[in-house]
Amino acid sequence: MLKIGVIGYGYWGPNLVRNFNEARGSVVTIVSDKSEKQLERVRSKYPTVQTTPDAQALVTSPDVDAVVIATPVSTHFPLAMMALQANKHVFVEKPMAASAAECQQLIAEAQARGLTLMVDHTFVYTGAVRKIAEIIQSGELGDLYYYDSTRVNLGLFQHDVNVIWDLAVHDLSILAYIHPHEPRAVSATGMSHVKGEPENIAFLTVYYDDTMLAHVNVNWLAPVKIRRTLIGGSKKMIVYDALDPAEGVKVYDKGITASHAEDVYKLMINYRSGDMYSPKIDVGEALMTEALHFIDCVTRKQTPLTDGTAGLHVVKILEAATRSMAARGAVVELS
Amino acid sequence: MLKIGVIGYGYWGPNLVRNFNEARGSVVTIVSDKSEKQLERVRSKYPTVQTTPDAQALVTSPDVDAVVIATPVSTHFPLAMMALQANKHVFVEKPMAASAAECQQLIAEAQARGLTLMVDHTFVYTGAVRKIAEIIQSGELGDLYYYDSTRVNLGLFQHDVNVIWDLAVHDLSILAYIHPHEPRAVSATGMSHVKGEPENIAFLTVYYDDTMLAHVNVNWLAPVKIRRTLIGGSKKMIVYDALDPAEGVKVYDKGITASHAEDVYKLMINYRSGDMYSPKIDVGEALMTEALHFIDCVTRKQTPLTDGTAGLHVVKILEAATRSMAARGAVVELS
Amino acid sequence: MLKIGVIGYGYWGPNLVRNFNEARGSVVTIVSDKSEKQLERVRSKYPTVQTTPDAQALVTSPDVDAVVIATPVSTHFPLAMMALQANKHVFVEKPMAASAAECQQLIAEAQARGLTLMVDHTFVYTGAVRKIAEIIQSGELGDLYYYDSTRVNLGLFQHDVNVIWDLAVHDLSILAYIHPHEPRAVSATGMSHVKGEPENIAFLTVYYDDTMLAHVNVNWLAPVKIRRTLIGGSKKMIVYDALDPAEGVKVYDKGITASHAEDVYKLMINYRSGDMYSPKIDVGEALMTEALHFIDCVTRKQTPLTDGTAGLHVVKILEAATRSMAARGAVVELS
Amino acid sequence: MLKIGVIGYGYWGPNLVRNFNEARGSVVTIVSDKSEKQLERVRSKYPTVQTTPDAQALVTSPDVDAVVIATPVSTHFPLAMMALQANKHVFVEKPMAASAAECQQLIAEAQARGLTLMVDHTFVYTGAVRKIAEIIQSGELGDLYYYDSTRVNLGLFQHDVNVIWDLAVHDLSILAYIHPHEPRAVSATGMSHVKGEPENIAFLTVYYDDTMLAHVNVNWLAPVKIRRTLIGGSKKMIVYDALDPAEGVKVYDKGITASHAEDVYKLMINYRSGDMYSPKIDVGEALMTEALHFIDCVTRKQTPLTDGTAGLHVVKILEAATRSMAARGAVVELS
Repeated sequence: MLKIGVIGYGYWGPNLVRNFNEARGSVVTIVSDKSEKQLERVRSKYPTVQTTPDAQALVTSPDVDAVVIATPVSTHFPLAMMALQANKHVFVEKPMAASAAECQQLIAEAQARGLTLMVDHTFVYTGAVRKIAEIIQSGELGDLYYYDSTRVNLGLFQHDVNVIWDLAVHDLSILAYIHPHEPRAVSATGMSHVKGEPENIAFLTVYYDDTMLAHVNVNWLAPVKIRRTLIGGSKKMIVYDALDPAEGVKVYDKGITASHAEDVYKLMINYRSGDMYSPKIDVGEALMTEALHFIDCVTRKQTPLTDGTAGLHVVKILEAATRSMAARGAVVELS
Repeated sequence: MLKIGVIGYGYWGPNLVRNFNEARGSVVTIVSDKSEKQLERVRSKYPTVQTTPDAQALVTSPDVDAVVIATPVSTHFPLAMMALQANKHVFVEKPMAASAAECQQLIAEAQARGLTLMVDHTFVYTGAVRKIAEIIQSGELGDLYYYDSTRVNLGLFQHDVNVIWDLAVHDLSILAYIHPHEPRAVSATGMSHVKGEPENIAFLTVYYDDTMLAHVNVNWLAPVKIRRTLIGGSKKMIVYDALDPAEGVKVYDKGITASHAEDVYKLMINYRSGDMYSPKIDVGEALMTEALHFIDCVTRKQTPLTDGTAGLHVVKILEAATRSMAARGAVVELS
Repeated sequence: MLKIGVIGYGYWGPNLVRNFNEARGSVVTIVSDKSEKQLERVRSKYPTVQTTPDAQALVTSPDVDAVVIATPVSTHFPLAMMALQANKHVFVEKPMAASAAECQQLIAEAQARGLTLMVDHTFVYTGAVRKIAEIIQSGELGDLYYYDSTRVNLGLFQHDVNVIWDLAVHDLSILAYIHPHEPRAVSATGMSHVKGEPENIAFLTVYYDDTMLAHVNVNWLAPVKIRRTLIGGSKKMIVYDALDPAEGVKVYDKGITASHAEDVYKLMINYRSGDMYSPKIDVGEALMTEALHFIDCVTRKQTPLTDGTAGLHVVKILEAATRSMAARGAVVELS
Repeated sequence: MLKIGVIGYGYWGPNLVRNFNEARGSVVTIVSDKSEKQLERVRSKYPTVQTTPDAQALVTSPDVDAVVIATPVSTHFPLAMMALQANKHVFVEKPMAASAAECQQLIAEAQARGLTLMVDHTFVYTGAVRKIAEIIQSGELGDLYYYDSTRVNLGLFQHDVNVIWDLAVHDLSILAYIHPHEPRAVSATGMSHVKGEPENIAFLTVYYDDTMLAHVNVNWLAPVKIRRTLIGGSKKMIVYDALDPAEGVKVYDKGITASHAEDVYKLMINYRSGDMYSPKIDVGEALMTEALHFIDCVTRKQTPLTDGTAGLHVVKILEAATRSMAARGAVVELS
């Protein structure tokens, strides 16, 4: 039974505590938060769980085998490093840390100590994204042409990171999973509408070596909630709507064929349009799948699907995007 | 009765012929097209209309007072210039011409001769866009924060212009009307998925002097048709869906307020959410409104709402966008 | 070349004239309407077509081989009978006539004279309904359980027939095509909200010999337009949305299985849910398919798919429904 | 602090336990269920709550002031009667009991003992239905013309009651609240598709004294989930979609006006279409509102909004509907 200490009981923390508590193979032993009011909530709901305002006490407790970190991004690195140095496995919220350099240090520390380091790229563990990856890997879409995502709604404005770090991080983790290629360059634009605060609207383009182009539209200040991604291939195309539980993934047998007619210099574009289908999606809670995967990786000393390297991959793009955005879209190469 | 000659009877030409023929105050007298098959269609539908494969013959005919041009973009300039030099008024499809320089010459020629020059920025004449402009001008939205448009579907691939010139031109003409400010800079990204052909997917960001940011997502290779624009303001926000004839414009009483609580250094963001309403939209055909406006401008020597200057404004941004796209998003300043 | 005379140039007549004029094998020669204003429209659009306010003159003209009737329901019988007695083939709008007795007389007259008599059950000729029929006939749905249709919008109130005769007629003609079984009984409820006028809202249930139940919800006074039908089978189920041109027919691999567990007296219901698919639909205009079918039946002396018998089948149910509605739902048996 | 005993911890019971436990003014002290497995779940989640398989023990316990009943319909009467006779207040699931006669006995018993008897008509306590009632009561819709509800999905088949008792009960309770008039007659049709089981699809029409007509379409065997109600009035109309949390209530300024033109014998129907608006809806959990109302009624000896009389009103219609359905729609008068 893996003993879990959870740091941070704000927006996402309660979901982590619930899932790690219910997951077969783990139990939450201690929860830490700076707010006494939040700790009171923990005690009322989980009378047997210890609480403490002191993250260090949690990290060093013998009642903790693994530390789950759900705090603001800027604190991910110090907390995760402290946990690793106390020889605890770490499960950290996305984005993994505030810079690629920080990610690299955490990876090195975990590796040196033989500890499991996993990043909470939740969408990778949803039935919908798994099904999409399966379809792409089967070759059904043909060559990937684009990934075009819109992820907008009203709230929750963050103070320490911009909207790309908060929302586009989901798309970048999905991309790393369904299109496991190295991105080459990034261009981003965006704006802040609250003086002194990070950008609340942003648009990100990611270039790869191949014909693939990724684009992500993120916005904290939209009147409606949209979570829709178009994925274009040379043979078929997908529309993924994360807000539609019943028919969230639709596969369209649509596309073009280019041909030279009589005139060899003139290209003819023909349009194909066939049936559409919507595969059945596993609707289990992603976080439970993820908790079980973490427990399994710790127990059997396996590398998590979304390990530190996956977290670093995403943070590199986020860093580049922020630089590009400051230069109003100027391309930033990823080495 | 204004006698109209129409050059080009391909995709859009039939709509122009129909509307200028039915409009009170004008009659179509001659139609020109390179394809004899298309001219045969004209004769079968409009037995009294003359047809000719020779655009010059049309332009110089005494049976023509005004020339309507619905041909590929690269031919707009020579045809429009020929018509102006024959002392004919001109109504030209969007985009006005293939370069800002061309636009400027057409404007100068029309002005020197006292002729009407109008560009077919169709959306400006729709009930929905008119209503949106009215709402914005009333101050109901507060300061404009963003215009974020998605305009995607499968087809029609163009050979002489990229998808920005074909589709984003609609958004730029709408923007010029509802937010009549000078854009300052442009960043664009995109890609071609058919070798040797122009970009079929593109993303365009337009910067202004103020807090406004415009973004346009255009795609000829999408599995579904989307025509949706989010318009964010400091007080209210609009969702405009051009495919929903009944409830195309929705106005949301939503937004944020920023305040300093006890801690003056910490900004609190509060979210407001009130009623939504969808104003009744005039569903008359935009092209008829436009035809009547053109006839009126010619007759009464008025300046059209979408005159050569409006056409130039849009083409300047298109030129800059194409330059930026070639440099993978590098910002291009608009002087 | 079949010479067509069209009686009635109101709401639907212009579509009939256009299609029979464009169809290969027929030409419209005369149009008749009581309104001189409507005839003026005909002449302006079709300069070579004759017009007359006198239906009898049209029917007896040697320039007419077949008569198309698009007038109020109460006039269908006298006009169609007059045309048949003048030895003209007849294509009549739905519903075929104002009573089953009238339908039977028309069928007998056409048969006695060897003339073609066809009823305009338009939906039977749409790509969507054809595809649905094909799916049902293949056995993919299993046993049919129900057909549940909602057909509501604002307008057009009729004065001579109630909403069942105006709108449910579409569903009854679809049902006759996709489920060619004899209905056994009818129950209908409804109400008029305009004094002295026919019912503007109604609900119709049709019973068959088998497990099938049909229900139709029709309403002239609804705030939104809905055209949606659920079709349930023992194996699969269909949702048909006639307003969705792209994905109008969706086939769901969903259903139940009933089984006896340990306790043989207790039935266990299990739910199955698999993939959904949306077959590609032929989007050609139904009325053109229909016009060509009529021409073909006349020329080759074939029986139309929607002949007088099909028209009678539908009118019988409409008559029974009106009787049931007057008795607030009391069942009316169909002999 | 009102001490609550809950009988039945199946589908809905857990929601009742959670809400009565969290509600200010009440605490759940005992839970009873026939299944030891379900009781184990209670203990694991609420360590301080007592559990028992014996409903009578719960009802007679001094630790219980009020009994909440969430068991199959056929047991509502004996359990509620037992609770009342033990001098406990009662909160019972909908429908109140299996017959009007049972309801009347419960009402009499509660009244004789001065006890609170409340029925869980949940929808009456939702923000959406409250807002609809407010709009209707303000006169904004004019005279009510119809209430037309579709409430279909796949599952949960019941064995002891048909789909009307399971699903239409929601609409009948909403109707009793928003249109507090006596229904006069009922017509219902339906069918069972599982041998020996109750009807799984049904259609219910309710007649009133006035111009109002109610219709409810319920189905346990539908491929998609729909919860949509159209409410028509002489001035405005509402579309209520219970599955749309953001814009669930839309008010349309649409309708008709009837007028006599030149010809006094010919009625002209004109259509009006203005703006639509969607009022902000309170999204708090209905069951919490309801729990607080029950506590308040017990404490302050007030009559609940959904008291025994409201429960009886609904059960009377359900009884009549079942009789009508057996007679294939024959009208059943409500005395």
